[in-house]
Amino acid sequence: MPDSPAVQDFYPDDAAHCYGCGRFNDAGLHVRTRWDGDETVAHFTPAEYHIAIRGSVYGGLVASLLDCHGTGSASAAVLRHEGREIGDGPSPRFVTAALKVDFLKPTPLGPELEIRGRIVEIKERKVVVEETLSVDGVVTATGHVVAVRI
Amino acid sequence: MPDSPAVQDFYPDDAAHCYGCGRFNDAGLHVRTRWDGDETVAHFTPAEYHIAIRGSVYGGLVASLLDCHGTGSASAAVLRHEGREIGDGPSPRFVTAALKVDFLKPTPLGPELEIRGRIVEIKERKVVVEETLSVDGVVTATGHVVAVRI
Repeated sequence: MPDSPAVQDFYPDDAAHCYGCGRFNDAGLHVRTRWDGDETVAHFTPAEYHIAIRGSVYGGLVASLLDCHGTGSASAAVLRHEGREIGDGPSPRFVTAALKVDFLKPTPLGPELEIRGRIVEIKERKVVVEETLSVDGVVTATGHVVAVRI
Repeated sequence: MPDSPAVQDFYPDDAAHCYGCGRFNDAGLHVRTRWDGDETVAHFTPAEYHIAIRGSVYGGLVASLLDCHGTGSASAAVLRHEGREIGDGPSPRFVTAALKVDFLKPTPLGPELEIRGRIVEIKERKVVVEETLSVDGVVTATGHVVAVRI
């Protein structure tokens, strides 16, 4: 695992209840976004009930992981753009304006998933992130997130 | 509620475990897609933990509902295209090739959500569905699903 702190651990308390990534949501997924060089990375191991059909991961879960890792990546990117790193004060909180997911092939259910983000546009209030979701090095879905700062 | 049967209740047993819409998934969301005239409709009331921030519905849940209602709508559309109605034998099973969600405004957390689908393209193995998600008649998100038959 990359050793940068996770951006979601520094969201302000009143913006940290998200089902996808809030540290205060006991029922949630707890997506955690960190730097790995110039990319962001998160890992998630689905539960057995996160099934679509025939041993593949539910597409709505894939979308959820890409969504929260996208807004987390936007937050990390703005921090770095301003000369700060994750943990240097509160993480700025972004929401998703648009999410596009292309399901390239079934995502096998069982192994840990890796979600990687690449920042392709950064403005003060808007960040665009391209993402991949992979299993054992094979990309099974891609994501495109337009994130807007709140 | 429209009184057509739900397309997901007629998916083949071995394709009915989906987290979003499978009748055999005890932990799942149980999305149910029915005809309402020429449109499809589904309703869903989020739980308190399906929060994003500040009283709004989690975007990943919105994406999940649009995803499963999209594939369900594709199934219903192919049945009708072939001169059959929901419940006339097994529902054909589609998976999502691409999902696009535009979040127009925050979706208030609490009331029932309505998801409506309109079929914009239909081929033997590929159906395109445009969707809206609304609360109390106000559209808060739109979806575009490319569904492929398996």
